[in-house]
Amino acid sequence: MAEERTIPYKIYLSEDEIPKQWYNVRADMKNKPAPLLNPGTGEPMSYEDLRPVFCDELIKQELDNDTAYIDIPEEVQNFYKMYRPSPLVRAYCLEKALDTPAKIYYKFEGNNTSGSHKLNSSIVQAYYAKKQGLKGVTTETGAGQWGTALSMACAYFDLDCKVYMVKVSYEQKPFRREVMRTYGASVVPSPSMDTAIGRKINADHPGTTGSLGCAISEAVEVATTNEGYRYVLGSVLNQVLLHQSVIGLEAKAALDKYGVKPDIVIGCAGGGSNLGGLISPFMGEKLRGENDYRIIAVEPASCPSFTRGKFAYDFCDTGMVCPLAKMYTLGSNFIPSANHAGGLRYHGMSPVLSQLYHDGYMEAISLEQTSVFEAATQFARVEGILPAPESSHAIRAAIDEALKCKETGEEKTILFGLTGTGYFDLVAYEKFNNGEMTDFIPSDADLEESFKTLPQING
Amino acid sequence: MAEERTIPYKIYLSEDEIPKQWYNVRADMKNKPAPLLNPGTGEPMSYEDLRPVFCDELIKQELDNDTAYIDIPEEVQNFYKMYRPSPLVRAYCLEKALDTPAKIYYKFEGNNTSGSHKLNSSIVQAYYAKKQGLKGVTTETGAGQWGTALSMACAYFDLDCKVYMVKVSYEQKPFRREVMRTYGASVVPSPSMDTAIGRKINADHPGTTGSLGCAISEAVEVATTNEGYRYVLGSVLNQVLLHQSVIGLEAKAALDKYGVKPDIVIGCAGGGSNLGGLISPFMGEKLRGENDYRIIAVEPASCPSFTRGKFAYDFCDTGMVCPLAKMYTLGSNFIPSANHAGGLRYHGMSPVLSQLYHDGYMEAISLEQTSVFEAATQFARVEGILPAPESSHAIRAAIDEALKCKETGEEKTILFGLTGTGYFDLVAYEKFNNGEMTDFIPSDADLEESFKTLPQING
Repeated sequence: MAEERTIPYKIYLSEDEIPKQWYNVRADMKNKPAPLLNPGTGEPMSYEDLRPVFCDELIKQELDNDTAYIDIPEEVQNFYKMYRPSPLVRAYCLEKALDTPAKIYYKFEGNNTSGSHKLNSSIVQAYYAKKQGLKGVTTETGAGQWGTALSMACAYFDLDCKVYMVKVSYEQKPFRREVMRTYGASVVPSPSMDTAIGRKINADHPGTTGSLGCAISEAVEVATTNEGYRYVLGSVLNQVLLHQSVIGLEAKAALDKYGVKPDIVIGCAGGGSNLGGLISPFMGEKLRGENDYRIIAVEPASCPSFTRGKFAYDFCDTGMVCPLAKMYTLGSNFIPSANHAGGLRYHGMSPVLSQLYHDGYMEAISLEQTSVFEAATQFARVEGILPAPESSHAIRAAIDEALKCKETGEEKTILFGLTGTGYFDLVAYEKFNNGEMTDFIPSDADLEESFKTLPQING
Repeated sequence: MAEERTIPYKIYLSEDEIPKQWYNVRADMKNKPAPLLNPGTGEPMSYEDLRPVFCDELIKQELDNDTAYIDIPEEVQNFYKMYRPSPLVRAYCLEKALDTPAKIYYKFEGNNTSGSHKLNSSIVQAYYAKKQGLKGVTTETGAGQWGTALSMACAYFDLDCKVYMVKVSYEQKPFRREVMRTYGASVVPSPSMDTAIGRKINADHPGTTGSLGCAISEAVEVATTNEGYRYVLGSVLNQVLLHQSVIGLEAKAALDKYGVKPDIVIGCAGGGSNLGGLISPFMGEKLRGENDYRIIAVEPASCPSFTRGKFAYDFCDTGMVCPLAKMYTLGSNFIPSANHAGGLRYHGMSPVLSQLYHDGYMEAISLEQTSVFEAATQFARVEGILPAPESSHAIRAAIDEALKCKETGEEKTILFGLTGTGYFDLVAYEKFNNGEMTDFIPSDADLEESFKTLPQING
């Protein structure tokens, strides 16, 4: 097919083609994501309720279920120009290695110093914080991608940045800490002894290696008890999915240039920021009945919120100080096994994606990490890029779909999100290279125990 | 100036515009680089003399001082498409931060997993090794960029890859080792006890942290004593500069698109691979009298081959088993101070660049590493990219030139090579962030001592 041969290895949009508006998929959802609730009263959180925690403009975006397109501020557009548009890559070498008739594309978000797509939202959140005249922001980070992205954004806008880093990552990824420090951030292993909630978690769970849920509690406490600070978050929230829609909008624009329509769209899912961003314009068409796509969320078997969680109101954090969100959740005190090195460690899932999954608009699968690292290594060797463990969940799923095509002879077009690079995940790669990586699947009994912490409000 | 505003943040060429031929600057040099000499006989090394060490086709390129343009094999062109063209970036944010009328551009070679420009040559060398039916290749690596690049290339062409890594880097950069292992290479700290020369160096210099010169000796010994193996090198050699001309050709093509002519071209210089590649088409015009450019090589004050070395025949390796090259050199047993963390540790310099410098076609300066890391940090915070220490030498020089323009009001156009990223240099950044980085300048007496090892052939 002549059409095929004209597709380059990498499709770059021009700078002018970077989206000037984000797409808000909530506008096209019949069943809107459930509102955040005040954990004390059980009432929906209003704009005023959220002001002590979040920046004003970001709250508006959080609560806006109706506006389909929201302008990207010019300052953010300019920052985007430093590392966007990101390439949409045709995985010719992977296709050849798999000997598959499938056509595989990936949207690569790792070509920036944060190493992932997280910068797409951190720069927005820092921009609004600066515009509001704040002194700084606090946040949590797991693998460190979000913390690095936020540090970069804060350096650019000259904001103070305090990052609570999940202790296990802080120890496994000392270099991430140095990148953040190079960008001027202060980085604290969580749970720390700096906060009331951190001291409580340390007392209740001596020797804990931490979780995103713990770190969120600490960051929120610091933001709400210090003048001129707000809390920012790199995933889960509606606003973050809005910002990340830039991934999907660019990917779709690049495919449209060559008249390519994906049959399957695959993204890894931790809190949902990348998946939600990547699929947004495709999901929009699906919701509006214009086009159909198979959309697959891929999560680790050791932290399976979609595939084994409950769709219920739950705390976003372990300390139970944050609002309640209705989402697929494993319970707010769920902490993945210490042998889990593959990222995507959050106990819950974006309310937007949770609603879409609940309504049958997407599928979800869970994978064990050794098979994920096998796919990562295969991908690295043929496509050149060393992928992040998180991204490698999507790679594994894409390879598996391409191999099914090999069996059936179907020429399906597969798009997946390559969210980032694994340059700071070499401890995990080393474990895999040494044959020392193991898998872990929580037992039903473990999950039942964990579900007990779901709040009463679910009845 | 309206023309100015139309220049995007990043100028990408299309895939079709990736060069299909390398440019060989030697063809335009009146004084050709001096030939490699046999250390035993003092005679120039012939094609046959070099065959036990290098791949046949690469020897032809090494010895070819006349052909101006050499075709890039199609398989290499296809590999280039996976990560090239690399972006030429207009440093708008840096210009703004410096408040300079200068216009700053950088050619960014770090957006691939090797993290540097080294992949441009490793893929070529692996291709010719495979084509010749070899089993594998051996090499040395310092910072690990070259070793990583070669590992990636060997994985792509399914070749065995054995890397001797300078011990100090091996210890400071354990993660580099894991990247290489992920790509299937075996990595040995040098000097090792695996080779005769390694055992001798260890015996003569107990506790040595190694040098590129030592590691080269070991890699050459292994290549020449094992059937089906050859030695490959990531810098210094004429062939490497030829392959790296792709950097300069792309940079010039991108600038030409917008009618921009640089006044100053700046590159960091260790063995000369990046500098030689970046400047090649500009140097060609200068040699042919078509255009003038100020060309500046930047090296570390702790390893100052251009600025304080002798232009003389010297061994390329510490073990004195390699051919002699006429180059600016500090003596083949020169080892930079252990406090030196800024890369660019080689005792000699590309014979091509040495001849051009000797003939007055370029300038050279040396910089101390703390000022280099200051520039790196400033650059990272405004331009987003965390630069490699090596590249940061060029950043420092570019910033200094831009600040001179601020004083004089001149609107000079500065182009520099951003050869790579610093993701694996966080130990050095940590030292800098902690205020523990120190500078080192070898004394004249140290250098006089080191020059004593220069071979007799210099008279």
